[in-house]
This record gives sequence, structure tokens and C-alpha cells, in this order.
Amino acid sequence: MRSLFPLILVTTTALAGAAGADALRDTVADQFKPLPSTIPAVKDNPVTPEKIELGKALFFDPRLSASGVFSCASCHNLATGGDDNMETSVGHGWQKGPRNAPTVLNAVLNEAQFWDGRADDLAAQAKGPIQAGVEMANTPEQVIETLNSMPAYADWFQAAFPGEADPVSFDNMAKAIEAFEATLITPAPFDAWLNGDDAAMSDDAKAGLQLFVDKGCSSCHSGINVGGHGYYPFGLIEKPGSEILPPGDKGRFAVTETANDEYVFRASPLRNIALTAPYFHSGKVWDLSVAVEIMAESQLGETLKPEETTHIVAFLESLTGALPPVTLPVLPRETATTPRPTSEIQ
Amino acid sequence: MRSLFPLILVTTTALAGAAGADALRDTVADQFKPLPSTIPAVKDNPVTPEKIELGKALFFDPRLSASGVFSCASCHNLATGGDDNMETSVGHGWQKGPRNAPTVLNAVLNEAQFWDGRADDLAAQAKGPIQAGVEMANTPEQVIETLNSMPAYADWFQAAFPGEADPVSFDNMAKAIEAFEATLITPAPFDAWLNGDDAAMSDDAKAGLQLFVDKGCSSCHSGINVGGHGYYPFGLIEKPGSEILPPGDKGRFAVTETANDEYVFRASPLRNIALTAPYFHSGKVWDLSVAVEIMAESQLGETLKPEETTHIVAFLESLTGALPPVTLPVLPRETATTPRPTSEIQ
Repeated sequence: MRSLFPLILVTTTALAGAAGADALRDTVADQFKPLPSTIPAVKDNPVTPEKIELGKALFFDPRLSASGVFSCASCHNLATGGDDNMETSVGHGWQKGPRNAPTVLNAVLNEAQFWDGRADDLAAQAKGPIQAGVEMANTPEQVIETLNSMPAYADWFQAAFPGEADPVSFDNMAKAIEAFEATLITPAPFDAWLNGDDAAMSDDAKAGLQLFVDKGCSSCHSGINVGGHGYYPFGLIEKPGSEILPPGDKGRFAVTETANDEYVFRASPLRNIALTAPYFHSGKVWDLSVAVEIMAESQLGETLKPEETTHIVAFLESLTGALPPVTLPVLPRETATTPRPTSEIQ
Repeated sequence: MRSLFPLILVTTTALAGAAGADALRDTVADQFKPLPSTIPAVKDNPVTPEKIELGKALFFDPRLSASGVFSCASCHNLATGGDDNMETSVGHGWQKGPRNAPTVLNAVLNEAQFWDGRADDLAAQAKGPIQAGVEMANTPEQVIETLNSMPAYADWFQAAFPGEADPVSFDNMAKAIEAFEATLITPAPFDAWLNGDDAAMSDDAKAGLQLFVDKGCSSCHSGINVGGHGYYPFGLIEKPGSEILPPGDKGRFAVTETANDEYVFRASPLRNIALTAPYFHSGKVWDLSVAVEIMAESQLGETLKPEETTHIVAFLESLTGALPPVTLPVLPRETATTPRPTSEIQ
């Protein structure tokens, strides 16, 4: 008889857990959405296997940068959560970028790209760093010259954009990169749980999700990417210190030139957030617990109890997903007409 | 009847070709050797699946550099022939390295590593760039601190070096990288031909091989890596200009401090040479034909006819091999005790 007690207890707990899980799942059903099991469709850019393969080659090709040092993968390293784990990225001439590099993982599902949402989609985004003087420091003209100098690229563009008279273009380069990036979808325990697997999230993570909703985090960080849409002032209730919110970077104000948009940023998508320290656009906070506490104070006017922070972090950990295996491309070799790399700073 | 003639001609040519190929194969049999079909054994470093997996993670991990910008894969890019296609690499603080980065592909089969052979093996080699101020600018102490800060690495070292009391060491890091690099073997058409497939090399490539032997190229560039062993003065017969052979870099002299070793370098391994422009330790020559002509003049006192150069280049192209597919590792995330990246120049 003695051995029966624990068994009964376990069963009861499991039942209670399941009931609790169902209630919680019902509560959050209209706020979140699991990742799809297929590659998301991209507006005005049909995703084909040929385009994905071309986009992968371009994503990993350092010859898109003037120096030959940086590819998209340098700052959006797929081995380290789709970002570079630096405060701000190091680019051409060892210059530092102005804002923390966001993860490319699941980025296709964001409403807009960059911290200030200034690019409507990943194709528009991809064109930015290639041309930015502190990043890849290249020009569209030289990129096209580089790509046209390698016959394999011309063939791949032809295959990816069939029927086009002039397939090797800066726009098509960006579209191919976008198509590859659309494959970088990382299903996580949270998705398994949303899909009905009660055991996929720990009790701590479920408690964290409940707090995430109750405290109001999900007012901004919601939807399929748990953020990545909507714009909000950083410091809605209380501005964080100038170390974390440098006065010189006014966020979306630079895009809209509307006073209301001073220090406004896109709500960060939180998938894989545990992999992508340091945090915020300034990249000044390395500890996820601290980042959660700052958010609670600055956006919600809440001082979290240590246990609450722990639970919310446990929920955020359940957003860490699995990337489909990425095999390195074999890139075409340079020819006599390929522009030579230059490390000079213009 | 008219249609019979071409058929007979083809047959005769094919037979002559086959006989010619056999004779040529016999001629070169003691000078070259095809790549093995299995991972080469490494001296004092048994290659195990666990060590390969750990080594792959380390090879791709930018946190082995002080800045977090560079991994082994930065200058030995497996997507572009195992090198970086630059004259000399760009490293920490945007400094330039002194010599052209050699390919890591098949490097395990070289007699010694670096242009001057100063490292006996790839494990010794791997420790160099990590510590070089102009490359990854790190210290063994900080590397170990970094690796120990991530529990997954501690587990992986334990699995790769079972039974060792202190598996996370700089030496074991280097051994694991060497084990991964031992897998980077690229069988080429030349290997297929050496193995008996007459059709694997074009007639031009075979003519080039014949010239390569007859002219004396294979006196230095022989063996399994078509070079990669033996030391010879660059400019044995005629010194190339100072642009190509900068007077300040005395090659192996810096290792041996023997006057005889001034401007002496290890004969370059020529596998995948068509993928790894620019050429020579100075990286000053971008065209493979020009590099072949310079070698003929400086080492053999020969001025090649254009057709001879074309044929030798066709032979060198037959050394371009296929890398086994490399899937990007998923690297452990940093923890609170992981040293932070610094872009400062010490």
C-alpha cells in the first residue's frame, strides 16, 4: 500500500498540470501562434528551391563586402543564434555599427526589419548592410560586377529568376537572400506546447508565460514571433539610463521625423532571445534576467520579484528553437574580372 | 559506308588515349598518390567522431578570438576553397597578416604547416593564429576561460578526451581542431585518374601533367598533396621582383637562422590551387597562368610557351576536389563568466 501513495500523487499532479496547461493555452490562444511546419510565403517573392540555394550562397559570400572579410553570416552567424553576440557589430575598417545586430532566425515573420522598422521586408533589409560604410562598405554596382564575373552565379540567377531578361540584379540578390532567410525557422518547446504537447514546457516556463501575459509583456511581445511588430517608446513608464538608452539614438524618429517617435523602437521578437545576448538596441545588457527586469520597470512600471524574473526567463528559454541543418555552400571562384577585395576605408 | 569512318577514328583515338594514359600513369606512379578514401590517421591524435564534432565547433567559433569577430573559418573559409582569397588576411584591429593564408583543405597531409614549415602539424598550427596579435589576438588562458564558461564545451571535451583529468586544455583544443581538419579531404579528377579512370582527366590536363613532370615541376610539387613537403628557395634560378618576393620576408630563415634558408619556403601543396588565388606567400599574383609562368622562370629557368602554360593549368584544374558536405555546428551560448569580446588593440 505504501507504494500507491506516490503513484496517486503523481497522477493527480499530472491531471492538474494538464488542466492548468489547457486553461493557460486557452488564455494565450489569441496572443501567440506556433511556427508553421512549412517555409513561410514571402510577399512578392515566391520561394523556390533555386532561389533558396542562390540565397544561401549569397548569404555566405564574403565577396559581397568591399573587403572580402564580411558576409551576411558574419553578423548573423547561424552557429550562434543568428547574430554575433557583440554589443554592436565590427565592420569595414574595424568600425563599429550603431546598433546591436538582431537575429536573422525567424526574421521573415517580423512585420518590418531593423530596430526602427525602416525596412519593410528582408529583401529591403539585405541591401542595407551591404552598402553601409561601417558594415560591408560595398556598392550595388560593384556587387553586380562581382556576381557577373563568376559564371556560376549568372547561371544560378537565371535558374532562380527564370524568364527575366536581366536576372543578375541587386534587387534579385536581395530577393534570393530573403528566400534563404525564410527557411531559417526554429520551432521551439513553446511551439510544441502551443500545438498541444503539455510536457514540452516546464512548470516554471508555464508560470513564466502566465506572468508574461498577466504583467502585460505580451501587450507588445505577441504574435508568431513574440514581438517583431508594433512600435513603442523605450521607457514608456520610466526611461532607462543613458548607458542603455544612449540619447543620441532616437530610434524610429530618424525614420518618421515625428516627435512622438523619439526613442521609439520596434518591439523585439523574443524567439531565441536566450541565445542572443547582449540585449537592447545598444547591446549594453548581457544578462537576460537583468534585461527582463529593465523591461518590466521601464515599460510596465513593475518591480519583479526574483522568482517572477526566474519564471519569465524560463518561459523565454522555451522560445529557444532548433535551426534546420545548414550545409555550407560551395561558392564559385573569382575570375580575372572579379573586383579585388580592398581593406581601404573610403 | 561514309558513317563508318568517324566511328573508326573515334575508336582508334580512344585506344591510343587509353594506351597513352596508361603509359603516363606508369611514369608518374612513384611521384604522386591518390587521396585515401578514409580519414587520414594523425600522429599522436586518434581521430574519433567526438573529437571531430568538438573540433568542428571550435573551428567555427568566433569566441576563440579576442574580438569575437574571427574564427578559424574566417581565413580558412570552407565555402571558398579553404582560404580567404585575399593577398594577406585581415585580422584583429583591421591589421593585415604578413603572408597569404594557405588552404586548410588536405592540409593534414602536408609534411609541416605554414609557408615556412614552422609548425610540425595542424595541432601546432592551430595555436598560432589564435595568439597572433594581428589575427585572433587571444591568449591560451582566455581561450580556456571562454571554453570552461560554457558547460556544453566542458561536456564535449570530456567526450572527446575520455579519462583525462583536465580535458579542457589549449593542447586538446588544438588536437580537436586538427581532428576536424583531417576530415577536409577533397578527392579530385586527378585522384580518379590515378585510380584508373582514364576519362577523369581531359587530354589537355594529361598533356599538362606530362609537362609538369618533364619540365621538373614535380621535383618539388609531388606526393599525395602535389607539394606540401620539402623546402626550396623562391628564385632558385632567377629571383622574382620585390613585389612578389618582398625582401623583408626571408621565409624559413626566420625558423632555422641558417643563411642557406634565406627566401626558402615550403613547396606549396597544389591541390585546389585553382580555387585559392591570389598566389605565393605574398599573395601578389591573381592569375594562375601567371603564377605558373613565374614558377617556371624562377625555379626552372624555363620560359613556357602559351600552350604549355594552358596545359599545365588544365592539369592544376584537375586537382580541384570535392569537399565532403559540412553542416554548420550549433555552438553553445555564452554565460555570465564568458569573457566579453573586445575590439581594442592591445
